[in-house]
Amino acid sequence: LSLSQAEIKSLRALTTKKGRRATGQFLAEGVRVLEQALQHDFLPGRLYVSASTVSERGTALAEQFKRRGVPVIPASGSDLARVGDTVTPPGLLGVFQSPPDELAELYGRGPRSMVLCDSIADPGNLGTLIRSAAAFDFDLVVLAGQCAEAFAPKVVRASAGASFAVPIAVAPLAEVLTLIERERVHLVAADPRGEDLPDAIANDADGGVALALGSEAHGLSPALLQRADARVRVRHEARVESLNAAIAGSILMKEWYDVRQRRTP
Amino acid sequence: LSLSQAEIKSLRALTTKKGRRATGQFLAEGVRVLEQALQHDFLPGRLYVSASTVSERGTALAEQFKRRGVPVIPASGSDLARVGDTVTPPGLLGVFQSPPDELAELYGRGPRSMVLCDSIADPGNLGTLIRSAAAFDFDLVVLAGQCAEAFAPKVVRASAGASFAVPIAVAPLAEVLTLIERERVHLVAADPRGEDLPDAIANDADGGVALALGSEAHGLSPALLQRADARVRVRHEARVESLNAAIAGSILMKEWYDVRQRRTP
Repeated sequence: LSLSQAEIKSLRALTTKKGRRATGQFLAEGVRVLEQALQHDFLPGRLYVSASTVSERGTALAEQFKRRGVPVIPASGSDLARVGDTVTPPGLLGVFQSPPDELAELYGRGPRSMVLCDSIADPGNLGTLIRSAAAFDFDLVVLAGQCAEAFAPKVVRASAGASFAVPIAVAPLAEVLTLIERERVHLVAADPRGEDLPDAIANDADGGVALALGSEAHGLSPALLQRADARVRVRHEARVESLNAAIAGSILMKEWYDVRQRRTP
Repeated sequence: LSLSQAEIKSLRALTTKKGRRATGQFLAEGVRVLEQALQHDFLPGRLYVSASTVSERGTALAEQFKRRGVPVIPASGSDLARVGDTVTPPGLLGVFQSPPDELAELYGRGPRSMVLCDSIADPGNLGTLIRSAAAFDFDLVVLAGQCAEAFAPKVVRASAGASFAVPIAVAPLAEVLTLIERERVHLVAADPRGEDLPDAIANDADGGVALALGSEAHGLSPALLQRADARVRVRHEARVESLNAAIAGSILMKEWYDVRQRRTP
């Protein structure tokens, strides 16, 4: 059951940005996260399972992956603990091929509803926003500027596997702005000085739409704010200075989702 | 500028639950968090400032605390780094007296609008929920069951100082249920099988109201679900299994806030 030192070393390399870049692979662990992968037909190249630590639900999941043709490799709990970065290793570790992240390719022939993350560097916030984007029916997440990596372990964990549920593009801000111009995307910018959302987007856009979210520390890039067709805020009491960035972004997504649902005949 | 070993030891003790319990004190660091403390007249017993690491904004803040009678103690950056738990110590560290947390005392003569956290053990989620509760005009947060500590460093940091903006009571679930009965509090429970919020609470309550939120792993205690006057959910696509607990709770708070705002003449 012991993995070779070389195998552990190559798995550990995937916990670093450098290792993920070099190989085009990433890791995901845990039952809930991997269940999402299966649900969205995002199959790992191989799956390590520690029979001594995995739960019954995890064993059943490994069985399903096996039936789908995924090589399942037995491993000891301590070997997996040396690779993963969770306090209590769940005994299930998948090695995945990074999916395409080209903006033009993922936008395709549009129109798309996008969440545009502008330099959201906090992995927890980014993962949570990806989860909310999938929940509230956005069909593309775009990472511009200095965002955390879509498939960094903390982001995948914070997304609870939603990283497998929605396509994620990575592009420089200039490229995003070019696409917005070319495709006439209706750009809605989150901005504390904006309007309440239902009013701000009362006029529906026929083409693609994008909700742009900035980081808590720096807000949105001026180029996005200037280009925006509308600026929206989450109204709240002055008792706090601001909301958490993932909270504010998710509330805007939900409010937009409600607007779109009301319009659907 | 060097603090004594004994002083550093007693400060470090406040980073542990045991130390906080024994002394009734807690620590808070960073400019944004301490600005919130000042804004809400929640003054530290003493404030440590490292002139070499603090920002201009932090220096001005220390000056304001000093004018309010807070003893300001110069300290070296490395001493403060040994006490705090942030990667880049902000050079400002306040020592606070823990505020009263008795439910009956804080509820007072009501009616109150409460957020009731049922065993929310994740410090990040709890801090974020406290921040949202303050933002969306709830006037009491109640921690029941196995919640994270209201004034643990990670909770205070995740609250961005909102822990100073709203009273926080700690009580066993049985005591909370007794208060709900006695004060005829209108109890709204977050539950994936519930209704959309605006419909669920269309009939306003005259007395106190409570929004009960459970943890992501375990949901709400059966006793709360059974007692609830209404069950509310955040509608979302089946593409993800669930929302992050802090996101779902904050969206419900915002939707309730909107309902209450519309009713205010």
